[in-house]
Amino acid sequence: MIRTALSLAILAGISSAPILADDNGVPYPEDYRDWHHVKSMVIEEGHDLYEAFGGIHHLYANDAALEGYQAGSFPDGAVIVFDLLEAEHGGNAVTEGSRKVLGVMHKDSGRYAETGGWGFEGFAEGDRGRRAVGKEADTACFQCHTSQRDHDYVFSRLRK
Amino acid sequence: MIRTALSLAILAGISSAPILADDNGVPYPEDYRDWHHVKSMVIEEGHDLYEAFGGIHHLYANDAALEGYQAGSFPDGAVIVFDLLEAEHGGNAVTEGSRKVLGVMHKDSGRYAETGGWGFEGFAEGDRGRRAVGKEADTACFQCHTSQRDHDYVFSRLRK
Repeated sequence: MIRTALSLAILAGISSAPILADDNGVPYPEDYRDWHHVKSMVIEEGHDLYEAFGGIHHLYANDAALEGYQAGSFPDGAVIVFDLLEAEHGGNAVTEGSRKVLGVMHKDSGRYAETGGWGFEGFAEGDRGRRAVGKEADTACFQCHTSQRDHDYVFSRLRK
Repeated sequence: MIRTALSLAILAGISSAPILADDNGVPYPEDYRDWHHVKSMVIEEGHDLYEAFGGIHHLYANDAALEGYQAGSFPDGAVIVFDLLEAEHGGNAVTEGSRKVLGVMHKDSGRYAETGGWGFEGFAEGDRGRRAVGKEADTACFQCHTSQRDHDYVFSRLRK
């Protein structure tokens, strides 16, 4: 839908339309907050991934991705969301703060053949107009995900 | 369904059926892991609620409860799940451990009129056969929830 809107905007020459720099075709995941909650984790200062992923994150799967978690490989159309929020420490508790980034893996084995069949994107602060990955998916995402080749490049596992 | 199974077991005199001591009629929330994820929180040592609720918890809402969060009051049939897992600290991260308790609020304004229209139950370690609240909902749950009378006795708020 985003790509359609963008294409239409370009075709129509509408300069006020949202600018999606380096659009790699991964759609913003509409309604992901109603998807299956896969698992969660808090990454704290001192962790190797703190700079990139510090905070509390939740993973969500659409129906196709849920099948993929169960099967160990994911069909085209599977979408996994990595929803990263600030982790607010205080009062002997960790609570959820503002959104840092909304990461997306979108399976389309034809389109994204060079990155394991997955398109990768990150929407800064969850803003659908602010793409943080764009054309850099190979170096920014996939190289690390290759360690999970045996699980179709997906790090997370479905928690009961 | 649990109550039906229990009643049938009693009627049939099947002693091997699961014993549901002090069944207060709140059903085990089938399929709650596919419901809407409302929000999450980690409660750590030193927190007033640590003894009862220490760990990482997630709240889930069925469709009727989701409407309730948006409206500020909850219709009959609304069910909210408080899914409490061990919080495993290590490697500068907090990960999810085993299930401590599966808490349930089930709105049935006729049946549970004495506790704000809500039935309360806790399934120890998520085991549908181990009810932790039973007939003690008033003292074990509701007295604390009365502080939230203006939000229909529900503490949590829906996070975006």
